[in-house]
Amino acid sequence: MSKYWNRKINEAEPYVAGEQPKPGQRVIKLNTNENPYPPSPRVREALESFDIDDLRLYPDTNATEFIEAVAKVEGVKASQVFAGNGSDEVLALCFQTFFEKESNTDLPVLTPEFSYSFYPVFEKFYDIRSKKIPLREGLSIDPSDYVGVPNCGIAIANPNAPTSRALTLKDIERILDGNPDSVVIIDEAYVEFEDNYETAVSLLPKYPNLCVVRTMSKSYSLAGLRVGYAIASEELIEGLKRARDSFNSYPTDRLAQKLAASAVSDTSYHRECIDRIRTTRRYTEEALRELGFDCPESSANFIFAKPPYGIDAETLYKNLRMQGILVRYFKTEGINDRLRISIGTMEEMMEFVDRVREEVSNAKGS
Amino acid sequence: MSKYWNRKINEAEPYVAGEQPKPGQRVIKLNTNENPYPPSPRVREALESFDIDDLRLYPDTNATEFIEAVAKVEGVKASQVFAGNGSDEVLALCFQTFFEKESNTDLPVLTPEFSYSFYPVFEKFYDIRSKKIPLREGLSIDPSDYVGVPNCGIAIANPNAPTSRALTLKDIERILDGNPDSVVIIDEAYVEFEDNYETAVSLLPKYPNLCVVRTMSKSYSLAGLRVGYAIASEELIEGLKRARDSFNSYPTDRLAQKLAASAVSDTSYHRECIDRIRTTRRYTEEALRELGFDCPESSANFIFAKPPYGIDAETLYKNLRMQGILVRYFKTEGINDRLRISIGTMEEMMEFVDRVREEVSNAKGS
Repeated sequence: MSKYWNRKINEAEPYVAGEQPKPGQRVIKLNTNENPYPPSPRVREALESFDIDDLRLYPDTNATEFIEAVAKVEGVKASQVFAGNGSDEVLALCFQTFFEKESNTDLPVLTPEFSYSFYPVFEKFYDIRSKKIPLREGLSIDPSDYVGVPNCGIAIANPNAPTSRALTLKDIERILDGNPDSVVIIDEAYVEFEDNYETAVSLLPKYPNLCVVRTMSKSYSLAGLRVGYAIASEELIEGLKRARDSFNSYPTDRLAQKLAASAVSDTSYHRECIDRIRTTRRYTEEALRELGFDCPESSANFIFAKPPYGIDAETLYKNLRMQGILVRYFKTEGINDRLRISIGTMEEMMEFVDRVREEVSNAKGS
Repeated sequence: MSKYWNRKINEAEPYVAGEQPKPGQRVIKLNTNENPYPPSPRVREALESFDIDDLRLYPDTNATEFIEAVAKVEGVKASQVFAGNGSDEVLALCFQTFFEKESNTDLPVLTPEFSYSFYPVFEKFYDIRSKKIPLREGLSIDPSDYVGVPNCGIAIANPNAPTSRALTLKDIERILDGNPDSVVIIDEAYVEFEDNYETAVSLLPKYPNLCVVRTMSKSYSLAGLRVGYAIASEELIEGLKRARDSFNSYPTDRLAQKLAASAVSDTSYHRECIDRIRTTRRYTEEALRELGFDCPESSANFIFAKPPYGIDAETLYKNLRMQGILVRYFKTEGINDRLRISIGTMEEMMEFVDRVREEVSNAKGS
């Protein structure tokens, strides 16, 4: 509390991110959905060829080199791509631009009850009403729950986090068809990890109200660089540019633009990393299921598993932590019986499974 | 206009930054107050020794290495420093955190009538009332105009932009003494260019309500990296951290943190660049005055000059532009009779003066 802070800041509950180990601390870090593999070798080449003298000049606000690289890979026009400082900033700008319509201030944004924790943060920040749609059996999203509900916009993570479950393109079309006057944000932070990778980008020619949001943090191994992007109709992208150019003058920096562009262009390395993570995920899912965990089929680079034999998720989290294995535990009621486990290297996951096996044996024995 | 954009975005007037030349275009670029010299050689060393594999992990939200480097150079505690994506983001977070007090929603933020164009942008964005205080004779700020005026906060650029005029520390103390319940932001984007460099940081032990904002873009030649910072009491810095951790999850990236830290540590190179720019500024001021310009003594890396012989500022701007020299012209009434000219290298400024001399001769001859 401080008399110098305004009400909103005095009342705010700061977001607590998954902890980062101190430099030199040896841990198996499975708590923030980072990629266990380094970024593409092209990123190193881009870094080495970067002319440091260029840093004296302001960056290109549009991040042209980067959005052109994305456009090429995704088969869209560069004018359909918008870059920001991580998908969090892109999402914030989407909420700022597309929601909170003056004429509809009583209408809420629809989001899944359990989804990315920043959606309610943005709703609070922009004073937008919020309606959380409960999940169905097996933590799944039923598209019909998003049709016929008055709203000023919809935001869904697909695959959803922390549940790891994915919608099909057909499901997404159903939501888009049912809400032609609302912008529907499909947050594809984890989409590349799906077994049959189906991005909503393919629906763009049909839906001017669809906004796909992506990040370089996960599948491209660039969490430390803070670059995300949106792909949408030119009309929606134009709106995001207006928001940026009116209220926000902190574009992605020159180095980040260049390095992110080089990573996007290396499609074969990208695919290779993803394949390895999928293989490791399959191993981990099967191992956990064998130990009795409830483990819905994951479409992401993490799994969301419920321990067996009445083992308390928080206790398991703490026991693993003491042994240098960090996973994510959410205190939130409704999901506090599970752990979110990021997929690391095969070696890391084998060690993780070994430790979990011991915990389960102890619990069974007691 | 779009039915998918909300009212605020449909009504917004996007900010127009000084134009950036296209790649390969040869211009003398004196329009965005960039530094004509490259960043410190230590930035290159930091880039070369950077381990690209680290980019797979999220950055340290606090930018510890960078804020510790700043704290050391400025003689404050690291807990008194806050880092952001350019001083624009830091300023936005300051407005978000310290102004718009619930109990005082009718009270305005005081800013100079002509000052950094983003202050009114932030006021509009956060729905804060604004009161612009007129400048005095010679574009100067009179501190007594900021005392006895009810307000919920004060923001002043010192030296002010685009006027280039500076307040003394005594002036700033007067404003702080007169407003003990408001946060006073002193935006020192250009302070290092003052002839007798006096930063308000020295006042911090006395004023818990003082927030000094700085940028790496100008004196450190890192506009392309987007790093800025605030130095203030721990109480104010704590508020900024709350805002960031509650509503904003786009910290400065790993590379930016490291490179900015290396630049800050090179105090002798920093001083050297500044000295060269001051020398060139003196030359340019004197040359323009000789040509008849009204040119107030500048404390920044730009000058704000009024052409003689009834030469129209906009016409002069356009004529220079046609010859490949970019300066900044503001259409705003009250300052539309002047040009803001960033200080480039001595060679650039000599060419600039030559071109201006021709324009003046033409005007006198006609």
